[in-house]
Amino acid sequence: MSADHPGIAELFSLLAAGELAAFYRLTDEAGMAPTVAGRVAIASMAASEMRHFDVLRDELERRGVAVVPAVERYESVLAQYHQSTVPNSWLEALIKAYIGDGLAADFYLEIAHVLPPDAERIVQEVMAETGSSQFAIDEVRAAVTADPLLKSPLTLWARRLLGEAITQAQHVLAAREELAELLFTGDTGNLNRLAEFFESIQGRHDARMRDLGLA
Amino acid sequence: MSADHPGIAELFSLLAAGELAAFYRLTDEAGMAPTVAGRVAIASMAASEMRHFDVLRDELERRGVAVVPAVERYESVLAQYHQSTVPNSWLEALIKAYIGDGLAADFYLEIAHVLPPDAERIVQEVMAETGSSQFAIDEVRAAVTADPLLKSPLTLWARRLLGEAITQAQHVLAAREELAELLFTGDTGNLNRLAEFFESIQGRHDARMRDLGLA
Repeated sequence: MSADHPGIAELFSLLAAGELAAFYRLTDEAGMAPTVAGRVAIASMAASEMRHFDVLRDELERRGVAVVPAVERYESVLAQYHQSTVPNSWLEALIKAYIGDGLAADFYLEIAHVLPPDAERIVQEVMAETGSSQFAIDEVRAAVTADPLLKSPLTLWARRLLGEAITQAQHVLAAREELAELLFTGDTGNLNRLAEFFESIQGRHDARMRDLGLA
Repeated sequence: MSADHPGIAELFSLLAAGELAAFYRLTDEAGMAPTVAGRVAIASMAASEMRHFDVLRDELERRGVAVVPAVERYESVLAQYHQSTVPNSWLEALIKAYIGDGLAADFYLEIAHVLPPDAERIVQEVMAETGSSQFAIDEVRAAVTADPLLKSPLTLWARRLLGEAITQAQHVLAAREELAELLFTGDTGNLNRLAEFFESIQGRHDARMRDLGLA
């Protein structure tokens, strides 16, 4: 694929919009944090979303694409995901932060394989897991160990996050041709590739559920 | 002054609490931003508060002080400042971000002169102005140029911010002996020093008012 395939700037635009949306969603949801430690952890996660946003803004600018209209194009699809997954408790918020970040990383790292090396490196950089997600794991594990009755509703919640993420990913792929082309470029059996794609995401989601003590 | 004067860890604790409080206040107030550009600018300012927070956390840890209880000690005085200066509009929020950050920097850089070189460098690093404050200047100048009637209420608002900041600074100095000692250490005429201190802050506040087109 050529280094200036239009799908690459489209992908970076979507990623930048995702980082900004995640920043504000995290900080909103931090209002539910019962402790200063929780507020610190969420603020750190949010700040690392903005570090990634800055990397993407620079890459877009290098390609002559302004970040603000790029973000505006993807605002509504990301708002749909967040509005359909509003957490009702601090534990739900933490699970959403951990599972949502993880799903986004799966989705984009899967796409990254087909990119030219420079663009692949950028996606890997901005999708690297942040150290702060350990906080979410520790808090959720401690809560379900202390009260095993929490396990079943929180597991359902995590499943809903997966379902909504896949729904929104499909919407994006259907609406933005350049992205779908990017993801499935050079493949002969597109439908097989799509099935594999969602299967691999499901597998990694299950691993994260075990991390949280929700398997 | 010795490098392990207890006032230094106290000062870093107050600074860390200030960064965290500013992070959440900025992100709350970003809800009033009318544009994506405004939301991006505020998120960038907030993220740089957390970068500074991380520097302070590392410094506190190096001195054997845990950051969470350190932040808890100063939460209420910072909450008082923020609760007494809740902006009613996007322009008021931008002015508060710019003026409030500037006042905090004045206050702490003034203290930094008396610190051992290592500690002085840390304060300078975490109080360096962020590039994003140019956004606040541009937006406020443009707004008061377009509508000169805004000038007088916004000038009053900025004056109130200065008054509240000084009130809270005095509360902190009165309540935390180590800090007052740090600030006025080695001086013979403490009262003169205090008067000079607030005079110099007033002078720099006036310069910032001119930046905003509010002089």
